[in-house]
Parts: sequence; structure tokens; C-alpha cells
Amino acid sequence: MSVRAGIVVTGTEVLTGRVADANGPWLAGRLGDAGIELAHITVCGDRPADMEAQLRFLADDGVDLILTSGGLGPTADDLTVEIVARFTGRELVLDTALEETISAIVNRWMAARGDTTGLDSVAAATRKQAMIPAGAQWVTPTGTAPGVVVSGTDTLPTVVVLPGPPPELQAMWPAVVEVPAVAAILASAPQQRQETVRMIGVPESELAVTLRTAESTISGFDRLEITTCLRRAELEIVTRIDTGADDAYAALLDLLRAEHGRAIFSVDGSTVDDQVAGLLSGRLIATAESCTAGLVAGRLTDRAGSSAYVVGGAVAYSNEIKTDVLGVDADLIAAHGAVSEQVAAAMATGALRRFGADTAISTTGIAGPGGGTPEKPVGTVCFGIALGDGTVVTRTLVLPGSRADVRDRSTSVALHLLRQVLTAQP
Amino acid sequence: MSVRAGIVVTGTEVLTGRVADANGPWLAGRLGDAGIELAHITVCGDRPADMEAQLRFLADDGVDLILTSGGLGPTADDLTVEIVARFTGRELVLDTALEETISAIVNRWMAARGDTTGLDSVAAATRKQAMIPAGAQWVTPTGTAPGVVVSGTDTLPTVVVLPGPPPELQAMWPAVVEVPAVAAILASAPQQRQETVRMIGVPESELAVTLRTAESTISGFDRLEITTCLRRAELEIVTRIDTGADDAYAALLDLLRAEHGRAIFSVDGSTVDDQVAGLLSGRLIATAESCTAGLVAGRLTDRAGSSAYVVGGAVAYSNEIKTDVLGVDADLIAAHGAVSEQVAAAMATGALRRFGADTAISTTGIAGPGGGTPEKPVGTVCFGIALGDGTVVTRTLVLPGSRADVRDRSTSVALHLLRQVLTAQP
Repeated sequence: MSVRAGIVVTGTEVLTGRVADANGPWLAGRLGDAGIELAHITVCGDRPADMEAQLRFLADDGVDLILTSGGLGPTADDLTVEIVARFTGRELVLDTALEETISAIVNRWMAARGDTTGLDSVAAATRKQAMIPAGAQWVTPTGTAPGVVVSGTDTLPTVVVLPGPPPELQAMWPAVVEVPAVAAILASAPQQRQETVRMIGVPESELAVTLRTAESTISGFDRLEITTCLRRAELEIVTRIDTGADDAYAALLDLLRAEHGRAIFSVDGSTVDDQVAGLLSGRLIATAESCTAGLVAGRLTDRAGSSAYVVGGAVAYSNEIKTDVLGVDADLIAAHGAVSEQVAAAMATGALRRFGADTAISTTGIAGPGGGTPEKPVGTVCFGIALGDGTVVTRTLVLPGSRADVRDRSTSVALHLLRQVLTAQP
Repeated sequence: MSVRAGIVVTGTEVLTGRVADANGPWLAGRLGDAGIELAHITVCGDRPADMEAQLRFLADDGVDLILTSGGLGPTADDLTVEIVARFTGRELVLDTALEETISAIVNRWMAARGDTTGLDSVAAATRKQAMIPAGAQWVTPTGTAPGVVVSGTDTLPTVVVLPGPPPELQAMWPAVVEVPAVAAILASAPQQRQETVRMIGVPESELAVTLRTAESTISGFDRLEITTCLRRAELEIVTRIDTGADDAYAALLDLLRAEHGRAIFSVDGSTVDDQVAGLLSGRLIATAESCTAGLVAGRLTDRAGSSAYVVGGAVAYSNEIKTDVLGVDADLIAAHGAVSEQVAAAMATGALRRFGADTAISTTGIAGPGGGTPEKPVGTVCFGIALGDGTVVTRTLVLPGSRADVRDRSTSVALHLLRQVLTAQP
């Protein structure tokens, strides 16, 4: 028996597109990990009728669990708990223990800010946030808003009300899954394994051919739920594997390797960022960026601990800086143009010297929208890698898309090139 | 009479949280611009029953217009058009003119790739994509998939089917709004003006107090639809203004200026990025980044034409690079620590010299999760700005959140500091 869920995301700023929703995707991931089938995510604004309609829709569609995010603040337009109370046919009651908990949190915060104004309005806000549906269980706030769990009935799903700010919601999740009503639903979900294969440089249409072959040749293929997704230049294949369908997945993996072996860079869930971080262990890397202008360095330092191997880098946007800071010969730029493998190589070797590194990566390209020529159209990007042992590797690609796409994809390509070159090192 | 709409986003990769949906927010923006009230965004995966349930929900909720994105590809799990045909009670029929159009596009692409394999499967895929609900109108593909418009009836809303890849969907929109059935709905929406105020450094709770005052003192306040949103360190206030409610908005703006004048940096919709780009015109800026490691340079070069004022910069992650490349005195680092206003100032003045710039911005901080101390906790970031006339400004902030949050907010703070310092320049 599959267990199905729905997520209701509230917030006018999300509905109107001004803010990207982080909670739907994050909660979807947690439900997926737990083997729960997510049927719907719905997004609504601050209009109570729209949220009620969505809750009703999910209940009518037969989901076992509804998660909501947002609308728990102290202001008048934060109505989620009230709406959920009405939806579940329960009265809204003051929970005094919760009121004390919230009050202690707020007082601590105000004391830290040295704030003594508006204590009355704070007390009213605290009281509002301590009103929950009768019989519901609350979860300790990670900001000021509590989580609320209303157990399901024969006709209604269990509803879990969560705060909107993603850090608060995420910090609260471990306590939410301990609430008995939630824990029982999670425990009833079938256990499915999930595996991810990542490849680079394969068009989705070629993968589609392979998957059609798989469908007709692999026994038990129907017990694999496969979704594919093209992201940046990478193709990601996520498979949910029913209990007992391990052989089918092994056969699929064999087929993927046979058809696309060279393109597959990950079968264990690791990202190119994970792999590059591992390969850089014990090394010192420097960057020399023109068109990506810091984005490669920014991505390399995304992860904690990257200071162990990232020394620094140069953003060499102008030709003068390529020469002055990285020591690229001005004649080389004049002869081949700033966007050339020769200059990419010189930038990388220059960065190696300038930053005392043993590994360097460079980018120089035309991100657009202007600046293209017939020989070097917009999207042309040259990459260079230089290593302490004298190895120099260059590559040129023409990347599609907008200025932002070209810069973003260039950053990914730089990481893949690093991975390839470093993997080939003894 | 308000005109209401719903958006159905399809795609397992979006539903499961592996890919952030770009289409819902983008379409929401277009609907908002057109004065259409967006009631719901729903997200479903590849299960036809879930999508049908969402279409039915939106129709039952009384929306006038449904936009769908995704599920138009050539593969077997791309079922949107078929589901919409069933939902609108129409037969799926082959449109031969559309088939020829798609075929011409595909042949051009394959010729460009020198690809002659699989012509049969391509013909089958083209035929599949040329099947549309009887009586529906198609919109020329911007990729290979057409848009489809099914006009509404007394009981059903108008349904517009759009492709999933955001560039395709966005490129198709101008043609979609020309389709008579869509144009008629857009024309029937009430015209509302929208204005945006942006401020920095004001807690949402203080703004809430101001808005409560506005509610009780401004005549016509109920004809302003206000949404507020805290993003990074900025507070954004978007107001939809009914026709004839201009005086109420003017009064609101006066009140906001009276209460939060110094914090307001934009009342014309411009972002801090827009403003900094304007202020940098005629200048040459260099960056010197430690904790943000290239992200400030990356953000400054987001926009086309930024090479006119961005010279370059250094990612000075290690102390050695701060000294070697930026000329920061090693004794200064020893005396005050790398995360200090003294070092931030020296990094900025060093960048000014090193890169031959007249404007420089530096960051040095503890992004975490490790590295904090009681005096300098995680999130402590020092900023420096140096100008060609000898001006040096420094600032220290303790920013909340994760490593990614601290780095992201630091980038925003750097831009705001630049804005403030450059605005104050004669």
C-alpha cells in the first residue's frame, strides 16, 4: 500500500513569483526519502478561501498526509492555523504551555536586542501564535512559530503545519517526525531504495533510446520508477527501486554503462562538486576567471573546509588585468584574442605561479548578449587547467542560452574538466 | 470583476524537489502584470490521474484560465495534451499543418547535427507532438513542442498548454497572448498599477506596526493590496493599486518615508544591483574577496555591459594571498586577525592599487560552520570600500544563517555599502 501526501505552500510572495519556494522541494525530498508518494504540491497566497480549497482538494484526492508551510507569523494575515482548525472541524484554543514557551523565546530575543518597546503588542502576538486546534500536538518553535500536528481521522488526512522560513522549517523537521501521528504514517510507507546516476554530454534523446531498450530487455523493469532530468549540462537519472527489484536495477546500470560508459561520472549519488572536493584534497587550487568572473571560485568555496585547498584566484575581466596580475603576454592576447585556448592556458599557468598553487583553472569567453563574432559566437568559452607537474589542458566549448546560462554552464564545465584532468593524474 | 487563473506545473523532477520550478513564478509574474488574480499554482508528477485531479480542482474552484507547463515532449510519459483533451471532452486529432511545422524544425536540427539515424522514430515523435484536441489552436513551437490553447466554455476554463523548458515557454508567451481566446481573457482583467518599495535594515515587525497605522489612518487603504517579503537583508513591499486609489498609495508612501526614510532605497522598482550599476558608470571597480570568494565579482558582472566598469578582482582566501597579491601587511593580519576592519580596509586599498581601479570593495569574514570564536562568531563579516580620492569606509556585521546564507547576505551587504558610499560622493 502506497502512502500519499500533499504539500500546501502559502505565501503571496511565492505565489506571485517574487520569491522562489524552497520548502516544497525540501519537504518533497524528505517525503521521498521516507518512501511516501508525493501527489501534489499546491501554492496559494494569503486568501483563506484559496487555502481551504487546496486542503479540501488534497483531502478529497485521498492523501494520507498534508504538510503546510507558512502563514504562522504574528500578523493578521498569518491565518494557516485558523484555517486548518476550521478544515479539521476543531476549535482554536489557547495552549498555555505553548504560550509560555513562545514568550520565553521572544523575551530572550528582545533582551538580546535591548528592546523594551511594544511589550503589549508582543504579548498579543505571542497569544495569537499559541492558539492551536483543540487536541492538536505542537512542536517547539525553532523561530517563534510552533509546528502543529492534527491527527487524521477516517475522512481527513493528518495535517502538519510548519513555519515558512526555510531554516525554521528544516530545523523543526527532526522533531516533527517524532510526533506519534507523523511517525505512524512514515512507518507505514513501503521502503524503496533510491539510486542516482549522473552523466555529462549525453543528449536526453539518446538516453531515451537506451531506456526503451531497457524496457524491452530487462526483466522486472516495471518495478523501477525512473525519472530523468537535464540540468545544466548534466543528465540525472533517479531510480526508485521496489524491494526485491535489485537485479533489475543492476541490469539497468550494466546497460547504461555499456551504452554511455564514458559519459557516466557518478553512480553513487555524488555530485561533481563532491568529486572535485575529494580530488583536490592535498592540493592547492587557484582560479583565473574572465567570463565567469568569480563564480568558479565561489562554487569551489561553497563547502565548509574548502579553505584547505582553495588558495585564491583572480577575476581578470580586462585584458590589462590578465597581463598585470596573471602575467599573460599582451602579444599572445593580440595574436589570438582574449577568448582563445592560448590565453586560457596562459591564465592558468599564470595563476599557478601568482598564487603559489599546484592546480589552476581558467575561463575566458563571451557570455553575451553582445561581443560575439562569426568565428567566436556568443557562448564561446575557453577553459584551461594547469598543474604543478607541467600538465596544461585546454578546451573550447560553445554553450547555449542566456548570459546567465552561459556563465552558469561554464562554471559546471570548469568543474567537470577539473574532475577529468585530476582523475587522470597518477 | 476580477479574473482568476491557476497554473499547473508538471514534472516529476520538479515535484520531487530535484529541480526548482522556474515556470510557475515566471507565469505568475506575467499574470500579475496583466491584472489577473492568480489563485493557485499546483505541481504534479507524471501520473495522469494527479494532473487530471488538479485540472478538475481548478475548474471547480472557478478559475477563468488555466496555464500548464511541461509534459509536451516526444516520449511516452509526456501526456499533458492527451490529458487536457480528455479534461475538455475533446478528441485528440492530428493537425497536419502542425506536423509539417514540427517536422521542418526537427529536420533542420538533425541536419545541423549531421544526424541521419532514427528517422522513423523521429517521424513517430513528430506525429505524437502534432496531435491536439479537436478545435484547439496551436502556437508555433519555440523548441519542438507547440503551445495549445483550448477555449473555455460555460463550465470549463480556457486551458493554455505550454512547454516545460523555461526558455521555450518564455519565448512562446508573446504569441500565446495574441491567441484570441487568451487575448479576450487578458482584456477583461481590471487594470491595476503595481509599485514596489524596497528597504534595508528594517525588521518586518516594525513595518507591520507602520502598516497597522496606515490601515487606520489612510482613506482608501482597503483598495491597496500590499504584500511584504523579507529577502536576504531587504524588505520588499509590493502594492497593487486599484484604479482611482492613487491618493491612498501616495499617502502610504508618505507614511513609509516618514517612518523608515533612511532605510528606503528604492521606490521605483529598481534593485540595489540596478542602482550600483548606475553609480559605477564612469568608474572602474575592483574586488578583493575572502569569505565571499568571487561571489561579489560574479554578481557585479551579472549584467551585460558590466565590463565597462568591472576591471577585475582577487579571491584572497588565504592570508598569503592577501599579502602577496593585495599587499596587505602581514603584521596587520597578525595584529588584528584576517577578519578585521583593518584588514578589510587594506584589502580594498590594495585592490585599488593592484587593479588600477578607482573603486574597490573587500570582504573578509567567517562564513562557518567552523572558525568562530567568542569575539568573532560565525557570521562575522568585515567590509571595506576604498575610492580613488582616498576615501576608505569599513563596516562589520554579524550575519545569521548557514554558510550559504552568510555568503549570500554578505554579497548583498557589499552592494548596499557600495550604494551608500557612492551615493554620498559628490
